[in-house]
Amino acid sequence: MSLNIVEASHKKAKPESEKIPFGRTFTDHMFVMDYEENKGWHEPRIVPYEPLTLDPAAMIFHYGQTVFEGLKAYRTDDDRVLLFRPEKNFERLNLSSDRLSIPPVDEQEVLGYLKELVQLEKDWVPSFEGTSLYIRPFIIATEPSLAVAPSKSYKLMIILSPVGPYFSGGIKPVTINVEDKFTRAVKGGTGMAKTAGNYSSGYQAQAKAVEEGNNDVLWLDGVEKRYIEEVGSMNIFFKIDGEIVTPSLSGSILQGITRTSILELLRKWEVPVNERRISIDELYQAYEDGKLEEAFGTGTAAVISPVGELNWLGKKMVINDHEIGALSQELYDTITGIQRGRKDDRYGWTVEV
Amino acid sequence: MSLNIVEASHKKAKPESEKIPFGRTFTDHMFVMDYEENKGWHEPRIVPYEPLTLDPAAMIFHYGQTVFEGLKAYRTDDDRVLLFRPEKNFERLNLSSDRLSIPPVDEQEVLGYLKELVQLEKDWVPSFEGTSLYIRPFIIATEPSLAVAPSKSYKLMIILSPVGPYFSGGIKPVTINVEDKFTRAVKGGTGMAKTAGNYSSGYQAQAKAVEEGNNDVLWLDGVEKRYIEEVGSMNIFFKIDGEIVTPSLSGSILQGITRTSILELLRKWEVPVNERRISIDELYQAYEDGKLEEAFGTGTAAVISPVGELNWLGKKMVINDHEIGALSQELYDTITGIQRGRKDDRYGWTVEV
Repeated sequence: MSLNIVEASHKKAKPESEKIPFGRTFTDHMFVMDYEENKGWHEPRIVPYEPLTLDPAAMIFHYGQTVFEGLKAYRTDDDRVLLFRPEKNFERLNLSSDRLSIPPVDEQEVLGYLKELVQLEKDWVPSFEGTSLYIRPFIIATEPSLAVAPSKSYKLMIILSPVGPYFSGGIKPVTINVEDKFTRAVKGGTGMAKTAGNYSSGYQAQAKAVEEGNNDVLWLDGVEKRYIEEVGSMNIFFKIDGEIVTPSLSGSILQGITRTSILELLRKWEVPVNERRISIDELYQAYEDGKLEEAFGTGTAAVISPVGELNWLGKKMVINDHEIGALSQELYDTITGIQRGRKDDRYGWTVEV
Repeated sequence: MSLNIVEASHKKAKPESEKIPFGRTFTDHMFVMDYEENKGWHEPRIVPYEPLTLDPAAMIFHYGQTVFEGLKAYRTDDDRVLLFRPEKNFERLNLSSDRLSIPPVDEQEVLGYLKELVQLEKDWVPSFEGTSLYIRPFIIATEPSLAVAPSKSYKLMIILSPVGPYFSGGIKPVTINVEDKFTRAVKGGTGMAKTAGNYSSGYQAQAKAVEEGNNDVLWLDGVEKRYIEEVGSMNIFFKIDGEIVTPSLSGSILQGITRTSILELLRKWEVPVNERRISIDELYQAYEDGKLEEAFGTGTAAVISPVGELNWLGKKMVINDHEIGALSQELYDTITGIQRGRKDDRYGWTVEV
């Protein structure tokens, strides 16, 4: 399909320091494409960033039929702009859409439109250390109907937001509460999909964790409240007695692209790695035995977010003396190095815009 | 707060027969009220029904922070307009909001605004047998931010839609598939809240059920996949050996207002009734023993939706020879009779507009 581009007549001021609050500043343009039952996905276009106009009965407001993705564009020291494994995001977008009964997109085609959009907004990719241009593709159900059934029309949009470093002033390991009451997801539910409802359902647990002096939440499985799933909205890894352990994809865990990349790196490095079920009891036992050496969350926002302390039913596990572990640091340096074009991209993970 | 009313200059044509598709026609006006962190809920207003304008980064599109309600206004034979236990809807709206970290509303105040809106749109309440004016209050998060955190601003809206009879040409018992793969909700999740994500997450199971010749889905609990929870988006009741059994509110089941009313009626009538956990195995055993006498879903849309057949892992349970049961019929006649002002409202359930 041919892409129509309408340029914005007025250009906004770009951030002038690395202090950019997450997800509040948007660029001059956005990508939009529509779906209708008999036309399929059509009318791809780049237009000025502007408010959306929707009927109050649009299904997105009532039954939550929506999916999204998150990735970043990075500026290299020699002023190129790189994306990190963006094809994986559109692959996952279609997986999420399948779970939510949303029609799939042509992954290569939409990736092409995304590249055109980032190309047009190239000057918005910040160059300060640790900054990037956050990219948010999302699909919403737009049919004006209160019938509880899949929508007959959708809108796919991509908006761009320059963002500051996740850790300002160096990485700080976080304190995490192991949630024992609220549940994020369960087998047969939507936990493996990137869909809106999975996020707001965690706000209560998040608020409780912060009230009790933690930064975030570690989720346990919804069936036995025993097996470790995710931390906040990141995947979780542990180094136990020299071996790296991460929960296997059970059907209720999001398949993180940083998670996949870390597993691939560790295998290349011949570090022992094990994707399997791991219970909170087992983790606590490893801690008591002095074998819990590192813990870290992984995701697009932080890449690696070291866990310095876990609180579980009144028991405290302090990990690596609240310091970032050597392996965590090496993974962080390697991935951010590849993303910023400072390390050799031997795996072909980056895509230049 | 004082309610501002802006009347629509152009009035739409009203439906002229009972054949009104569900949730596609909307009245001339809607109610809107805004929330901001430092102002609380403010600016209640009735305005012409018109599209909403929202930033593409509005949180409703990304993290699903939203709740809704559903109730109806009924026209009596002597041309009065009645609501059915509307205070219970706003009580439940606040319960849902609490789970989704949305600020509560003043229930009495919003009920007052709702009455004003229905009063203004009185001519839209249809009079044909089985028709009513469906009322949809909903709250959406509107802050333009991609941070995964509760929104600082919200919009509460009420839209109205004239709807036809749920059963055209008399009640038809439905065929239901007992879902064994997908999960609707789990303890610690959002199943007890009326929030968008709970609905679209059921579309895949619904489509599979229809493909296999069923009308809808019976959900089992997310932990053991054994205990009966809800049918489609209705509560479920069984008559087993003379006793009425309905799943107890486990934390993952919606507290239906029709469910509550039926329990109250049955107790008044001194029919044996039991709110408890009931497994699908127990139900099948009762069927095999010839003790499963009636089954019906309950909700605002249908009031009573008799279940004529249940399909569970290749086993078929035909209930009451695919006919509506005597008790189901009596409950239906009593509640719809009270709603339409044809039966004595001895419990004070109706509120005149």
